[in-house]
Amino acid sequence: MERTYIKDVTPGVCRVQGFVENFRNKRTMAFIVVKDITGKLQITIEKEKHPEFTEMLDKLTIHSVVSFEGEVVASEYVKMGGKEMYPTAMKIESIADALPIKDDSDIDVRMDYRWIDLRRDKNHLMLEMQTTLTNALRKFLVERNFVEIHTPKLIAAASESGSDVFEVKYFDGNAYLAQSPQFYKQMAMAAGLERIFETGPVFRAEKSYTNKHATEFTGFDLEFSYIDSFDDVMKMEEELLAYALSEVKEKHGDKIVELFGEEYAVTVPTLPFPRMKLADVYAELEARYGYTVPDELKGDLTTEAERMTKQLCKDMFGHEFLFITDYSAAERAFYHMRDEQGIPQGYDLIWRGVEITTGAQREHRYDVLKAQAEEKGLAEDVKFYLEFFKYGCPPHGGFGLGIDRLTMLFLGLSIKEAEFLFRGPNRLTP
Amino acid sequence: MERTYIKDVTPGVCRVQGFVENFRNKRTMAFIVVKDITGKLQITIEKEKHPEFTEMLDKLTIHSVVSFEGEVVASEYVKMGGKEMYPTAMKIESIADALPIKDDSDIDVRMDYRWIDLRRDKNHLMLEMQTTLTNALRKFLVERNFVEIHTPKLIAAASESGSDVFEVKYFDGNAYLAQSPQFYKQMAMAAGLERIFETGPVFRAEKSYTNKHATEFTGFDLEFSYIDSFDDVMKMEEELLAYALSEVKEKHGDKIVELFGEEYAVTVPTLPFPRMKLADVYAELEARYGYTVPDELKGDLTTEAERMTKQLCKDMFGHEFLFITDYSAAERAFYHMRDEQGIPQGYDLIWRGVEITTGAQREHRYDVLKAQAEEKGLAEDVKFYLEFFKYGCPPHGGFGLGIDRLTMLFLGLSIKEAEFLFRGPNRLTP
Repeated sequence: MERTYIKDVTPGVCRVQGFVENFRNKRTMAFIVVKDITGKLQITIEKEKHPEFTEMLDKLTIHSVVSFEGEVVASEYVKMGGKEMYPTAMKIESIADALPIKDDSDIDVRMDYRWIDLRRDKNHLMLEMQTTLTNALRKFLVERNFVEIHTPKLIAAASESGSDVFEVKYFDGNAYLAQSPQFYKQMAMAAGLERIFETGPVFRAEKSYTNKHATEFTGFDLEFSYIDSFDDVMKMEEELLAYALSEVKEKHGDKIVELFGEEYAVTVPTLPFPRMKLADVYAELEARYGYTVPDELKGDLTTEAERMTKQLCKDMFGHEFLFITDYSAAERAFYHMRDEQGIPQGYDLIWRGVEITTGAQREHRYDVLKAQAEEKGLAEDVKFYLEFFKYGCPPHGGFGLGIDRLTMLFLGLSIKEAEFLFRGPNRLTP
Repeated sequence: MERTYIKDVTPGVCRVQGFVENFRNKRTMAFIVVKDITGKLQITIEKEKHPEFTEMLDKLTIHSVVSFEGEVVASEYVKMGGKEMYPTAMKIESIADALPIKDDSDIDVRMDYRWIDLRRDKNHLMLEMQTTLTNALRKFLVERNFVEIHTPKLIAAASESGSDVFEVKYFDGNAYLAQSPQFYKQMAMAAGLERIFETGPVFRAEKSYTNKHATEFTGFDLEFSYIDSFDDVMKMEEELLAYALSEVKEKHGDKIVELFGEEYAVTVPTLPFPRMKLADVYAELEARYGYTVPDELKGDLTTEAERMTKQLCKDMFGHEFLFITDYSAAERAFYHMRDEQGIPQGYDLIWRGVEITTGAQREHRYDVLKAQAEEKGLAEDVKFYLEFFKYGCPPHGGFGLGIDRLTMLFLGLSIKEAEFLFRGPNRLTP
């Protein structure tokens, strides 16, 4: 018999399969809650009627995997969906040993047995939500003529800076793991691909133990040509995110509120997102909340100011997102284009008080780009990259998002909880 | 003025942007062919009317990037789309130095300047086709409740075997680069995710210099639970590929024939794909083409037999695809399920005479799996993986595809030509 998803079970005969979420084996009756990816169903067994089940019931354990066929009936006694199945056939697909973790075990212990931890409803929802998010981002872009590329993760030279990069033994020499596809997505612009995106791993050899840092995570990057200014980049990003959030809300909005709480209800943002210059952010933070920072820190957003933008955004705009522009050139990457006053033509995007993107128009003019690299003492390191701009390159810009970071913010998680399998300085397993 | 894609240009005033594909600067006239991602347009300049263009025209070079605004008119003298533009405004966005490669330069020289090589029509089409292919694969699966995961590429132990794996310096210890997401996609089954897929890089430290081998390429992997046999896996794969090929044919079929020739016309395969046992393949190869191999090689498909299946497939079934089953257990991975006779419950899928997939039902029963690992002398190496099956795991199966290999087969390319940036033992740049 074909399997029926538990969410689709209606009164009548069917077959369900899943993990044993709960199990009571009484003298005359047995009650089993079976959970599949779509829901939970109570299985009720009158043991006298089914002596052939006895041996199986005696060895059945929590989290074993089972198949049941039988009659489903409506039942006013069963809370779970108001239905129960009286099985006529039972099979144990896989027996579970006693579980080594509980829902409330320490996160690091749960990580040791991540595959068991991932069985929880919240984690299934997290990965389903992430699937919807990532595929909505791609769909939006593919419909707008973006080409998907897969840039190499094995590279000959450390990408933007020599630090924080993993070294790989590569036959008789060395290679490094890409910290970002930045240089290669710009190479795609020089290749005339015009609009590209990539989803892929990025690697950071940072010995950080915060709840935001991982040594490997999933980046979502895009770059596109023939822009007139970085305003085109902000526009693309706000439309992209509004679309992706609306897809997430539509498919998972109710379930997110049910499992993670009203605080994490998805709000589809209105367009355009508010935009502020960095200096104005500081002025407002001072005027409204008495927050001051020394002048020498005002070229960049301090961690505390970043956090406070959540409230600022809400108070000034009733919005969760905020574009901040006009950072100091000293604080921005050498490849950001600058205007005549030397102001970088880029932005950070803040969501719920956390920076989720740095975006910019890139400098595509070889001489200017080279000078900016030299100014930061990087000209030698990025020599291969500068070559991309020597043989014609359109004006272009782009940005990157972290899929794991977005997931954290969607659901209020730490990075360890938001990755399928977290990687950190002390964590390479399972 | 908003930019118009060249394919959408109609008589009237508009703005186009692109690379200079061709350029003739005569005494009174200049002719420029501008190419964007959608097509090519001739720009015709009467120099006397536009003295302000002279300086720009004198420094303009092939592959520079330009913007033009002006009136487009139909012209019977212009082959290219029967249209030309008489510009009223011109801007050079980026000047190209003399190009270091030609279309017919040696492939390894072209690889040094891959971003210039990628500008060719064939390469744009290749990446567009790959985008359609990959996103069609994902769309098919997302619609069937598959969840997308991102498994770690940094792992503590060499995955399936110790050889051919890259070692990474990981803080004070070592890590390795994943050769395949196999173990982790099965972990997702133990996590109750039921149906998952992943697109991501895989790494192989093989010192091979064939036209099929790369040290890094893009894998497309999936795995799903609650199957009854590996027949369910074959069914999923043939439906998936038929869908993806029909999408590619619809979007790029004509262009593929135009640029790559009739030989590479996309044929949407009929369902079901033909299925043969390996022994029957050998029997037919002998009977039809007099091809014989020694008995001791008959547990696996020889390279020559693999190639000959192209003709066999055509002659027997009029089909491009062929599932081959019933390999020898000695030749298959320890995690393939076997039947009571010890026959692996899996298959290879051949397309156009090249193996594109190994698929199987996996062994999900801990004791049996452990015994099979021991038999191959791998029990110690895969200890962490065996743990995934101790606490309940549904029956499941899956397969993997190589995006680059599919691209090669679609268009008749070598692996160096089919990757955005090829990586091999001697190739880590650009």
